[in-house]
Amino acid sequence: MEARFVGVDLGGTNVVSGLITPEGEILARDKRPTRVSKGREAILESITDCIEAAVKEGGISTKDLTGIGIGSPGPLNPYTGVVVSPSNLPPMTNMPLRDLIQDHFGVPAVLDNDANVVAYGEKWKGAGKDVNDFLCVTLGTGVGGGAVCGGQLLRGFNGNAVEIGHTTIDCNGPRCGCGNRGCLELYASSTGMVRLTRQRIREQHPDTVLTDHDGLESKHIYEAARAGDALAKEMFEVVGYYLGMGLVSAINLLNVEVVALAGGLAGAGELIFEPTRRTIAEYGLKGVKEYVRVTCVELGEDAALLGAAKVAMDASPGRRPS
Amino acid sequence: MEARFVGVDLGGTNVVSGLITPEGEILARDKRPTRVSKGREAILESITDCIEAAVKEGGISTKDLTGIGIGSPGPLNPYTGVVVSPSNLPPMTNMPLRDLIQDHFGVPAVLDNDANVVAYGEKWKGAGKDVNDFLCVTLGTGVGGGAVCGGQLLRGFNGNAVEIGHTTIDCNGPRCGCGNRGCLELYASSTGMVRLTRQRIREQHPDTVLTDHDGLESKHIYEAARAGDALAKEMFEVVGYYLGMGLVSAINLLNVEVVALAGGLAGAGELIFEPTRRTIAEYGLKGVKEYVRVTCVELGEDAALLGAAKVAMDASPGRRPS
Repeated sequence: MEARFVGVDLGGTNVVSGLITPEGEILARDKRPTRVSKGREAILESITDCIEAAVKEGGISTKDLTGIGIGSPGPLNPYTGVVVSPSNLPPMTNMPLRDLIQDHFGVPAVLDNDANVVAYGEKWKGAGKDVNDFLCVTLGTGVGGGAVCGGQLLRGFNGNAVEIGHTTIDCNGPRCGCGNRGCLELYASSTGMVRLTRQRIREQHPDTVLTDHDGLESKHIYEAARAGDALAKEMFEVVGYYLGMGLVSAINLLNVEVVALAGGLAGAGELIFEPTRRTIAEYGLKGVKEYVRVTCVELGEDAALLGAAKVAMDASPGRRPS
Repeated sequence: MEARFVGVDLGGTNVVSGLITPEGEILARDKRPTRVSKGREAILESITDCIEAAVKEGGISTKDLTGIGIGSPGPLNPYTGVVVSPSNLPPMTNMPLRDLIQDHFGVPAVLDNDANVVAYGEKWKGAGKDVNDFLCVTLGTGVGGGAVCGGQLLRGFNGNAVEIGHTTIDCNGPRCGCGNRGCLELYASSTGMVRLTRQRIREQHPDTVLTDHDGLESKHIYEAARAGDALAKEMFEVVGYYLGMGLVSAINLLNVEVVALAGGLAGAGELIFEPTRRTIAEYGLKGVKEYVRVTCVELGEDAALLGAAKVAMDASPGRRPS
């Protein structure tokens, strides 16, 4: 029978799985709560149940699987298969997840960073499918990323590559929680946008509808910008500028041809894309910037499933070159 | 007979070649002026003569060669083999150097960026030989670099990867010649060091031996620092800090295990290495910075020859995986 893989997307709230063909067709899925508060064994059970459910739904048995790929929050080590210290999955600290899954099912398993498998999925079937050098950046509470360089997932020596949220754009900027200074995440995340907006409200914009209250979120800034609020629109300009500056550095280092944005802020569409692209056009390297495309991710939740399955495919014997 | 490769290091002043075994032994060499002022044909002749001389010196004929690898100043395109617009080799603009060499000798040739082949040579036989994720940074008039990620040379979609000199460390800093703002090159190159030193001389250090004269060079600052001059020593602290900040961003993006420094400023030894390492220890990511080593390149001029030959080996049929 034809090879079958399972891709798993492990998150702090839910675990999602998909039964996937070598061509990237998702035959069946499952989604269930991760049950973080219930501890280590419960989380592992959620994962194994989720895998079994997708496989059963697809009409086969787990013993027919060729491989299992798991995308998990990091930091983790893809080479040892150990989840190191995920901030939103504390019970999994130092858990040898790859081997536990492998032993449970008797099927080869691989583990990789969630941002990496999203990037790899988008490279395979989404926004990066036509290029070999691809960067995927998620603008959420923080800023995360994954990259494919020369067709190969960029992992680094201990699996912590593409921490683009913790690259400096202003070495005189505030200290970040990571220990570095003026990190991109302090400017181009939803929390960064709120921080910058609070500063501006206090300093110079008494006439905006936005107020500096505890519950201020990036979505309020988005709604105000859509309604024409000058400060809110300016904040997208500001955040787009900082994001563009961070991307210029990443592009100059990685020489990627496509940058795909994901996450809440990317959902603001041209409000954020336009100033980001304009900044790259102004500050990027001649001979490079003319060819770089900044676009939106295409696969949604499927990216992680497909990317995780693809990592498992790459690791399976007799694989076809990608 | 056993495979034989030629590695070529093309520079604005000299062209150097080496006849190299698959094990990386350099059997013979040649070095001669590039003759830039004599124009396109003269440069090409310098290169072909230089290749022939090393081959002859090694006691074989060019028809016995397995491949030729050429490291050239960029920008260039390694995929098309065309030198695009090298600032120190103007007559070579848009020259299809790879095909010209290939046709001249009837031997497969490859072309890659000079900074890339240096990094690849150091990865093969020098400072990076024990690791798969390696960054090499040259601190000269500008700041250049090459990287090996997962054992693979990082080239990017059009061969312009690892322009680390043009990554931003201060988005409020001065505009760089490249169009970007606050680039690492403005702080951590020899010209950047002189620029920063001039500012300090004017602002606050009337008691230093350094003066703001037209001929001020980084070597004068080095000599003054060695003689105990307070401002000169402080300038190595300042430049080491900026270099460290640039390396933290690069390490967080590439997750390299070893960073090797080359070029004039690297020759200052601990004066520059100590503050650079201290900055990484202070601002780097936990779980990464503890394992990263910052060291000096080991191979000198041989790095480019070996790296260029290795690129040719990788491209030759029936190559052994590295």
